Amino acid sequence: MPLVRVDVLEGRSPDELASIGDGVHRALVEAIGIPPQDRFQVLTRHADGRLVFDRHYLGIARTDGVVFVQITLSTGRSLEQKKNLFAVIAKNLAEKPGVRPEDVFVNLVEVVKENWSFGNGIAQYAS
Amino acid sequence: MPLVRVDVLEGRSPDELASIGDGVHRALVEAIGIPPQDRFQVLTRHADGRLVFDRHYLGIARTDGVVFVQITLSTGRSLEQKKNLFAVIAKNLAEKPGVRPEDVFVNLVEVVKENWSFGNGIAQYAS
Amino acid sequence: MPLVRVDVLEGRSPDELASIGDGVHRALVEAIGIPPQDRFQVLTRHADGRLVFDRHYLGIARTDGVVFVQITLSTGRSLEQKKNLFAVIAKNLAEKPGVRPEDVFVNLVEVVKENWSFGNGIAQYAS
Repeated sequence: MPLVRVDVLEGRSPDELASIGDGVHRALVEAIGIPPQDRFQVLTRHADGRLVFDRHYLGIARTDGVVFVQITLSTGRSLEQKKNLFAVIAKNLAEKPGVRPEDVFVNLVEVVKENWSFGNGIAQYAS
Repeated sequence: MPLVRVDVLEGRSPDELASIGDGVHRALVEAIGIPPQDRFQVLTRHADGRLVFDRHYLGIARTDGVVFVQITLSTGRSLEQKKNLFAVIAKNLAEKPGVRPEDVFVNLVEVVKENWSFGNGIAQYAS
Repeated sequence: MPLVRVDVLEGRSPDELASIGDGVHRALVEAIGIPPQDRFQVLTRHADGRLVFDRHYLGIARTDGVVFVQITLSTGRSLEQKKNLFAVIAKNLAEKPGVRPEDVFVNLVEVVKENWSFGNGIAQYAS
């Protein structure tokens, strides 16, 4: 159910990008109980200059290794769960492929459960 | 008003991608009454490995022909309308360009009506 | 905090795209008080045919110079602020790089403040 968009610059290799996708997914499983098989991601590498970011906002030193993660997911996670999710994403990406925690930018977009179809034209999560 | 993002792998041809955009738009018109001229879409083909998806989640067999459709639209559609929209998208894409219904993943993101400007710097839908 | 996605066709040069990113950001600062350093943008050029748009919807004449701007931001802006934001984006892009106001399409997606992490795995805006 989460639909995850990951955007990085081309300085990151395809292998690094794949590892980032893996780490974000494991964080969703670990921190907020997403089923391990519930994985849908769009991973994109961008030419130089196409990710624009401030290198110091909130006193956090960002580099060209920056990773933008936008996760659309169903409502219902508590603030503690969200905080844990952010922390585990940063931890996982630091472990592999070695992303600096300062470079991990995450945004959550919440939607109601009925707003998903996983195939066959059916709203599988609608009650 | 809907802003539609369609993401596929490069195994799908540009013509198939265009047909997918057409089919999603016709579904919006047919199922939830979007004006036929109200069409705004971003269609993207991705290199192998850049769409990550589980091939069996919820018992649905997905292939590299998978189609991710994310639709941002105004609030106000009923559950029945949403269910119908999912069904008609899958039906249309099956007819042309022949997408397997199992491969059609759809997510809706709802926003308030005042959150759109269709040009000229004006919020045309704001009351 | 806003995460801005700008999509244009390849008829627009990289320099024009960069100017569009600049103009959108200045509008966010001017119209709704976003901190000047709070800038996170994904700028993408697409091959011909990959942005699909109606050339006349609502009586607005759009061209291949169309600019799609999708802004994810925190809730809390008034209708007047949003209207002003749309107006200032169109004004800024007209000034530089000379985008026709008819070609500026904008959509806002609102999320709660706790849905952002600007680095280090922390929800910096959560209370």
